[in-house]
Amino acid sequence: MATNVLPRPVQRLIDEFARLPGIGPKSAARLTFYLLRAADDQAFDLSDALRELKERTRFCSVCFNITEEDPCLVCEDLGRDRTLLCVVEEPLDVVAIERSRAYHGLYHVLHGAISPVEGVGPEDLRIAELVERVQKGNFKEIILATNPTLEGESTALYLQRRLAGLNIRLTRLARGLPVGGDLEYTDEITLGRALEGRQEFKE
Amino acid sequence: MATNVLPRPVQRLIDEFARLPGIGPKSAARLTFYLLRAADDQAFDLSDALRELKERTRFCSVCFNITEEDPCLVCEDLGRDRTLLCVVEEPLDVVAIERSRAYHGLYHVLHGAISPVEGVGPEDLRIAELVERVQKGNFKEIILATNPTLEGESTALYLQRRLAGLNIRLTRLARGLPVGGDLEYTDEITLGRALEGRQEFKE
Repeated sequence: MATNVLPRPVQRLIDEFARLPGIGPKSAARLTFYLLRAADDQAFDLSDALRELKERTRFCSVCFNITEEDPCLVCEDLGRDRTLLCVVEEPLDVVAIERSRAYHGLYHVLHGAISPVEGVGPEDLRIAELVERVQKGNFKEIILATNPTLEGESTALYLQRRLAGLNIRLTRLARGLPVGGDLEYTDEITLGRALEGRQEFKE
Repeated sequence: MATNVLPRPVQRLIDEFARLPGIGPKSAARLTFYLLRAADDQAFDLSDALRELKERTRFCSVCFNITEEDPCLVCEDLGRDRTLLCVVEEPLDVVAIERSRAYHGLYHVLHGAISPVEGVGPEDLRIAELVERVQKGNFKEIILATNPTLEGESTALYLQRRLAGLNIRLTRLARGLPVGGDLEYTDEITLGRALEGRQEFKE
């Protein structure tokens, strides 16, 4: 008796939104009905942006960051220190480090971290490419800038073993109090690391 | 010094996602990077669904529900009781009522509720069209099924005044305990309404 009153294009968009991570069926319906009522251009702009993302971007064949040109702008930039390599998990990590303006070397994006729980092994990441790049390259220091999580630390440890013996300095990012943080609310592990890594006042 | 390392198509999609309600810049970036790594088809399917939503749907010129055909399937369905009209705020309300399988009349979608706070007045809703439709039609009963919220109640009250004098029965949905709910956790207003509206046991 009940008519299926949702037209097929509406149901289709709800289903597609619901496939995205963190968007359940209710949010998917809410987004769809928002777009139904919004100006046509907003839906068309989003539609075009999605198509462009896949048609106009690729991974850099050198550092595996996302790029429109291959090699990417960073790999091609001769003003950068080409003896310094920073290894990160994700393209967004490159964005974060660039934003700090404290780094001017090259990057290597692993596209994940080793995680036995999620079935991610070293062969699923860009690790073979990293080792080859380091062996062929002229790097003096490699910063293992994986996340300060269990997976990130394991990955850094694994990379440290794979890259040992190449006579290149291996470093990692300092652990400590976040700037603007509050000692009282800092978790005990971070506080412990901040104490271990304490530094002299500079005159 | 810092290179803008996000390719333009990536930044563009992040910006478009962030225009959607309830999606902040961080979620927008997360969705974008998820799609970057997902199969091309997922981004293309979502892209096509967005375009189709706008190109293949419209509002029914009779009831203002969303539809592919005008008039919509419900308005065209001769098996429905055409003397019964249910007035709702949103197309999703029609879906909810159809799902209950307890109604077999026609609908009228207002596309919102009167809300002075948000600057929504009667002239922003499909109220003039409703009044005209009721005057010309052959309805015996109109169910004012707006939401049980301040805005919904005000809208129902307004409609009641506009439709009074037409000698048509005006009703609204019963207030009471939600089925499967728990008396202990029911708010006092709902409980008050459930008491006021108490009904005889039927033999």
